Amino acid sequence: MARINRAQAATSGPVLIIGTGLIGTSIALGLRSIAVPVYLWDASPTSLALAADMGAGMALAGLNEGSVSADLPSLVVVAAPPDVVAPLVVQSLERFRGAVVTEVASVKDAIAEEVRDLLGRRDDDVEGTEMLRRYVGSHPMAGRENSGASNAHGDLFVGRPWVVCPTKVSSPEAVAAVRDLAIDLGAVPAELESGEHDRAVALISHLPQLVSSLLAAQLASAPREFLSLAGSGLRDTTRIASSDPRLWTAIIAGNAPQVREVLADLRADLDQLLAALPPTSSGLGSEIPPGMAGAISQVMTRGNEGARRIPGKHGDTARRWGYVEVLVPDQPGQLGRLFTELGAIGVNMEDLVLEHSASQPVGLARVMIDPADVEPAAAELAARGWRVASHSSKGQR
Amino acid sequence: MARINRAQAATSGPVLIIGTGLIGTSIALGLRSIAVPVYLWDASPTSLALAADMGAGMALAGLNEGSVSADLPSLVVVAAPPDVVAPLVVQSLERFRGAVVTEVASVKDAIAEEVRDLLGRRDDDVEGTEMLRRYVGSHPMAGRENSGASNAHGDLFVGRPWVVCPTKVSSPEAVAAVRDLAIDLGAVPAELESGEHDRAVALISHLPQLVSSLLAAQLASAPREFLSLAGSGLRDTTRIASSDPRLWTAIIAGNAPQVREVLADLRADLDQLLAALPPTSSGLGSEIPPGMAGAISQVMTRGNEGARRIPGKHGDTARRWGYVEVLVPDQPGQLGRLFTELGAIGVNMEDLVLEHSASQPVGLARVMIDPADVEPAAAELAARGWRVASHSSKGQR
Repeated sequence: MARINRAQAATSGPVLIIGTGLIGTSIALGLRSIAVPVYLWDASPTSLALAADMGAGMALAGLNEGSVSADLPSLVVVAAPPDVVAPLVVQSLERFRGAVVTEVASVKDAIAEEVRDLLGRRDDDVEGTEMLRRYVGSHPMAGRENSGASNAHGDLFVGRPWVVCPTKVSSPEAVAAVRDLAIDLGAVPAELESGEHDRAVALISHLPQLVSSLLAAQLASAPREFLSLAGSGLRDTTRIASSDPRLWTAIIAGNAPQVREVLADLRADLDQLLAALPPTSSGLGSEIPPGMAGAISQVMTRGNEGARRIPGKHGDTARRWGYVEVLVPDQPGQLGRLFTELGAIGVNMEDLVLEHSASQPVGLARVMIDPADVEPAAAELAARGWRVASHSSKGQR
Repeated sequence: MARINRAQAATSGPVLIIGTGLIGTSIALGLRSIAVPVYLWDASPTSLALAADMGAGMALAGLNEGSVSADLPSLVVVAAPPDVVAPLVVQSLERFRGAVVTEVASVKDAIAEEVRDLLGRRDDDVEGTEMLRRYVGSHPMAGRENSGASNAHGDLFVGRPWVVCPTKVSSPEAVAAVRDLAIDLGAVPAELESGEHDRAVALISHLPQLVSSLLAAQLASAPREFLSLAGSGLRDTTRIASSDPRLWTAIIAGNAPQVREVLADLRADLDQLLAALPPTSSGLGSEIPPGMAGAISQVMTRGNEGARRIPGKHGDTARRWGYVEVLVPDQPGQLGRLFTELGAIGVNMEDLVLEHSASQPVGLARVMIDPADVEPAAAELAARGWRVASHSSKGQR
């Protein structure tokens, strides 16, 4: 178990968290669990009190001189909505002269630019540049479906990427402090230029969300009997279409030009495919229109290529798993029994696809395992009385 | 366990299976397991011998008089590639005058039309119409990644939909025989007009496949560091992008006009969204361009609606599950232990999403369960020493 040892914690604190929503409170709780001193502030007294009650840190009455000493925090984390982040960052840089300041918004370039603008407008320009050295934007790529302090948890970032976006003038010490914060919370820091970050999340997060929503939207007015034929492919591709519209509207709006670009690339490919499909049937016996097979095959093959590049469990490129499909009675504990027996056989499950079907008291569990384990596992499971529906040691992702 | 009782089998047979690939051999094996007499034929002697060796039935040397008696089969199942299905159906109707004839191709309208055409071209037209009464197309919606008799299994159809497409003149007895076949193999029969079937699979099977492939294709040339930020959303939406291009090119080509129609609908929605996204950043502080938030929100909301309509486990509309997220050490048997304990608590797992992360010895298991079970399950798991990262009784699909 990836337990964090206090002796390993690089963040000494005190850390000031501005904004006690899901992310801010989760950071605070994670830091508290490794005994880092944490101070909290939020524009909403209720949110602030809730976070403090959860043990996330000590609530400050305000950020002014009477409430907190200027030399108190060594690190300030602004975890507020994107449209108010930059002024809070600048305020923190001005007030806490010894502190590194980071923020954790899901858009990075626009915020960095706004911070630069606000500091540039000051009279003492040299000092503004000096302050900019202490600012490093970042973005923990953690779950987002439920917001608010009440859903916060100190383990929220364990194993997730945490993008760190230094500006050109960020000091190495400031960058190190933000990387240390990520590592202390169990996250995996990844350094990216802020514009790169925005293009990356447009591609790997915002595009899949919109594509899934666009796909699911086509089902909204479909006949019910069509939907009763749905299989696991449709369920997989539309799972994230259930995400919160309000939250995602804000996310997409904040990264609109980058999202537009990746959407336009996809549309160009879609147009090419559409142009190759005939509007009326050519019949099965007759000739296939020229170009159609090639266009479909190209989309499928490029899709194969892209899918292979998504990192799997153990590093860079997706490892290809074998699988065993087992029929499982729909009763509590039956899946547990299956996986316990897989464990007893010494096989580690890499992934699982469950398929339930309408009105059947049985489900199909496709267990992804190391290809070398497939044959022995299938034989051993069958010997233990499981109904093995199929198995393959050929590549599956 | 959904075990089939021989006493319940409605198909008496003998059944003649023409084409011993994955589907044909699986049907044969399923029928043999409930003691229905099965005869096999395939254009490839090797495929035929393999199916017979697997115990799928008795291999016929041919379909002519010397090889098989005209009154032998009560049911003929043509399980051949789409472009040769219709002539084999007509040949079977002519040769086996007492048999119901079905085929199991994934395209239905073009085949029904070709069968009608071929029978209409005969001299004895009345007899052709009479023969058409014994023909009923069908389509078992079963797994397709691995082809050939060697991957066949009698349980392939258990719990899966099996579409039955009567023509206007199909006799009730013929329709009943095909429904009985589906039920005997553990499938759930669903009656659809052949054109309806083709539109249904275009929407719920072919569209998700192409959308997933188009999405994954965008990753083919993306920087490697972008892909290292991928989360479960991207993995879910691109899982089926790893499907076989050769097989899917044939499937899409066979249903091109219907696929074109659903793709065009999606493109219209995509265009609407694209038109609302500005090509350059408007900045976070400045005004959001009119229409943008509404356009994004509409896609998300319609996506919510569509996703809700996909049937879940227990009937018509997707039930919304709560979840518990648990950190699981990456060692054999640990997931088994988790699910065994869930079973001991009396909680039935409805679905599971596993998230592995780069270079971490721990994975995150999101276990979907009944919302009412969430709080007690989270408390009980924590009490048993599991690290519960988060939980929610609010709706998840």
